[in-house]
Amino acid sequence: MDSSQFREAAKGAIDEIANYYDTLAERPVLPSVAPGYLRPLLPASAPEEGESWDKIQSDIDRVIMPGLTHWQSPKFMAFFPCNSSFPAMLGDMYSGAFNAAAFNWICSPAVTELETVVMDWVAKLIALPDAYLSNGEGGGIIQGTASEVVLTSLVAARERIIRRRLGNMPEGEEKMDKAADIRGKLVALGSEHAHSSTQKAAIIAGTRFRTVAGPKDTNYSVIAASLRKTIEECRAKGLEPFYFTATLGSTGTCAVDDLAGIAELTKEYPDLWIHVDAAYAGSALVCPEYQHLCKPMAAFDSFNFNLHKWLLVNFDCSAFFVKKRKDLMDTYSITPSYLRNPHSESGTVTDYRDWQIPLGRRFRSLKVWFVLRSYGVNGLRAFIRKHVKLGEYFHELLESRPDVFSVVTKAAFGLVTFQIKPMPPNTSTTSANQPDPSHEAYLNDFTPNADAQYQEDVNQKTKEVYEKINSKGDFFLTSSVICGQYIIRVVSATLQSEEKYMKQVFEALVEAAEKGQVKGNGKAI
Amino acid sequence: MDSSQFREAAKGAIDEIANYYDTLAERPVLPSVAPGYLRPLLPASAPEEGESWDKIQSDIDRVIMPGLTHWQSPKFMAFFPCNSSFPAMLGDMYSGAFNAAAFNWICSPAVTELETVVMDWVAKLIALPDAYLSNGEGGGIIQGTASEVVLTSLVAARERIIRRRLGNMPEGEEKMDKAADIRGKLVALGSEHAHSSTQKAAIIAGTRFRTVAGPKDTNYSVIAASLRKTIEECRAKGLEPFYFTATLGSTGTCAVDDLAGIAELTKEYPDLWIHVDAAYAGSALVCPEYQHLCKPMAAFDSFNFNLHKWLLVNFDCSAFFVKKRKDLMDTYSITPSYLRNPHSESGTVTDYRDWQIPLGRRFRSLKVWFVLRSYGVNGLRAFIRKHVKLGEYFHELLESRPDVFSVVTKAAFGLVTFQIKPMPPNTSTTSANQPDPSHEAYLNDFTPNADAQYQEDVNQKTKEVYEKINSKGDFFLTSSVICGQYIIRVVSATLQSEEKYMKQVFEALVEAAEKGQVKGNGKAI
Repeated sequence: MDSSQFREAAKGAIDEIANYYDTLAERPVLPSVAPGYLRPLLPASAPEEGESWDKIQSDIDRVIMPGLTHWQSPKFMAFFPCNSSFPAMLGDMYSGAFNAAAFNWICSPAVTELETVVMDWVAKLIALPDAYLSNGEGGGIIQGTASEVVLTSLVAARERIIRRRLGNMPEGEEKMDKAADIRGKLVALGSEHAHSSTQKAAIIAGTRFRTVAGPKDTNYSVIAASLRKTIEECRAKGLEPFYFTATLGSTGTCAVDDLAGIAELTKEYPDLWIHVDAAYAGSALVCPEYQHLCKPMAAFDSFNFNLHKWLLVNFDCSAFFVKKRKDLMDTYSITPSYLRNPHSESGTVTDYRDWQIPLGRRFRSLKVWFVLRSYGVNGLRAFIRKHVKLGEYFHELLESRPDVFSVVTKAAFGLVTFQIKPMPPNTSTTSANQPDPSHEAYLNDFTPNADAQYQEDVNQKTKEVYEKINSKGDFFLTSSVICGQYIIRVVSATLQSEEKYMKQVFEALVEAAEKGQVKGNGKAI
Repeated sequence: MDSSQFREAAKGAIDEIANYYDTLAERPVLPSVAPGYLRPLLPASAPEEGESWDKIQSDIDRVIMPGLTHWQSPKFMAFFPCNSSFPAMLGDMYSGAFNAAAFNWICSPAVTELETVVMDWVAKLIALPDAYLSNGEGGGIIQGTASEVVLTSLVAARERIIRRRLGNMPEGEEKMDKAADIRGKLVALGSEHAHSSTQKAAIIAGTRFRTVAGPKDTNYSVIAASLRKTIEECRAKGLEPFYFTATLGSTGTCAVDDLAGIAELTKEYPDLWIHVDAAYAGSALVCPEYQHLCKPMAAFDSFNFNLHKWLLVNFDCSAFFVKKRKDLMDTYSITPSYLRNPHSESGTVTDYRDWQIPLGRRFRSLKVWFVLRSYGVNGLRAFIRKHVKLGEYFHELLESRPDVFSVVTKAAFGLVTFQIKPMPPNTSTTSANQPDPSHEAYLNDFTPNADAQYQEDVNQKTKEVYEKINSKGDFFLTSSVICGQYIIRVVSATLQSEEKYMKQVFEALVEAAEKGQVKGNGKAI
């Protein structure tokens, strides 16, 4: 394909992509294919001779489109969003054109320098304390995902505590033995509701992992007292907690740990590395009404949020900020001879490879730059607030039918979680604002385990309704289990999200709950 | 930006990108900016209000272009190439449009299924043993970089040996203590010429690391006897080697470890995980004349090469193949409740998140699919063979001036490494095919350390010439130090590479060597 063929092919692709976005809302959000659908559509190996672009492009409709889940659809309300935007796509087009494995400054100075500037823009945008700006000892870097960030900070924390314990001990086998002994007793901590990435990072780092309780009565948040309790329990067993992932917006319910309280606790435990994972909810920090959450960060070591979730930057783009970049470089910096160059040796440039696990890097700051400029601060705030309101609107809808829905957590960063009540048969016409007839009926049983039975039936009913909605494919929701409760999560935070879709999914939920009801004994009728 | 604005903006961007490629060869490959050039060109923070695309786009020329290193230029001969291609860019455009964090099958079945099919295509294309195909116990996955792959396999190896040692011991603190004890004695191994990624992965995994010798007399390759020697030395100290990165094309000289001999050794050390890193040279395996190198893989555990280096797939795209996918899943599989779904639970689908460190995944198989189809097997072979020949041509040029150049390693996968001789003054007209006057002059000294002095002066002279070439910016080369020798590496393997550029860089090297010569004492004159 030469450059003139590329012009033609790419312009055709642009039209197809624009058409795709124009027709998104009309498509079922979930595909109806069965596992293994794709292989029979393709030959068993690559063709011997090259094929024309026309032939290749036509296979997108034939092979790919039927197997896509449409994350940009306004009917996508599962997990957290993964927003794309046109300016971000333009950024990725240029990034692909300037294709490079930019692992140090001289590999493409613009790649490094734009990233430093743009990460400072982001830090200011979300009112991170100044310590996280690049003009001091800290700074920001773009990594792929929150999982990568959590692993990067957890391993840096592990090595930092070993350095502190071993001080100036000379290098050698003896030091390595001592380090291994320390490593063998280290424990990484995270909220029981923290994303699985902390547990996975602990496995990779070869340390132990313990969860910290975030019970219902603190709205599933970790408070300082719980964290202290877990730390002291570990210490009593001869183990050493070295790292804690504090969560700003948990995966299940968007719970926020007690950051201010935990910030106080750092005085007692100065060797504990505290990383704040704000993967989804961090984008809300562009709005002043959320920025009080940023103040405690001054007491912590690192912070990340995913611009690819809720800030319109295409996947992947996790902004990772550290207060002391030296903490990363002391672990990740290795400079073999083929990477030596006068610029890096002089210390006047940033080599981001020493802040991360991989060596090579893409030009991801371009898409961030384009999005920040294209939307402006006010455009981004409006985008976030729209979804916060949609969450509140959906919550109101649920509250209008207390006979069907039981809200578990109110709208938080656009996310609402709830359960479905197991209604007695023939109550589908129950009007709103009545007391909860089903739960009352159970309690009137006066049997010893009526309440436990009710909770079990709620879980069962919720699961059935959830599966019914997803199996239709019009909407895509996620379920989760929080402190024993099976919940449905709804969050709609795409560019095309609107009240009308919240209303539609609400109606679909009511319909699913009312048809094929579940009897008190948990059996479908 | 709405979809009609996107159509216009993106088509303009396509024209700019095509123009960039049409004018690549005319640009100096290296930028002339100084560290810190970019910040003064931009405001200190993101704009309050959104800006027009025209304004944003014009900043690419003003801010970005002056700071780019042009990796696609035919004058880029540094590191290894990082090739882009138009079909790959089209793949990334669609991937961006279908933007998703596709961490399991239901997140977008096409993302998972195309990857499985296309990785099978790649495995067949390079004649990997059948064990690496997805229809058995193995399979392929696209990861970002070789560093990520090496870490992924090293940690899986660490956990595999612990599982084997601890067998069916019940879970609990005692088992964790035992595992920590074992972990503390583990040693990862790699050739002294292996990429730094193995050392970095060992740091992250918290294990020790030892290099295995690859001396000059084996052409910088690790042979089985060296590997056995290092293993036994470790064992004698009570340490346990558990992992070895065998290199197919080392970073410095493209050396290939003795894979056939090492394959024999696996019978003696069945618990040693052997990963073959073919990051650059692996692309040559598309040509039958290299495929004998693939046979020993049947005895190893995993293999990777970067399609983003030499196979025209835009960065990043490292193809990672394992013989037993269970070895990855046993380490990386964690399924919290919000990721549970009937498809994954039934075991009928592949969840690639259990084969890797991050959770989310891009739709990278699209660009691989487009490249394989667009070029076809024969097109890819022609692309590789062209660069292999360019390497041989450049080697011949060097040999034509034995008075100036001393070849360290002959053309291997397009890469040639050499040194510059420190000529006595006024010998710039020395014709070819004469004996090496400078080295002879040194030896005629009969001083005890004449040879050592000569080597030092060669290193010094080579460094000077290397720095002179790069400081001009017309060509970009890399240096390295191999067994004490300072070498220049030249490899030209881009789409636009041609003999005439090899001739040009050769002439520039001769000129730099002849002007400002270095006296025998190492001082510039």
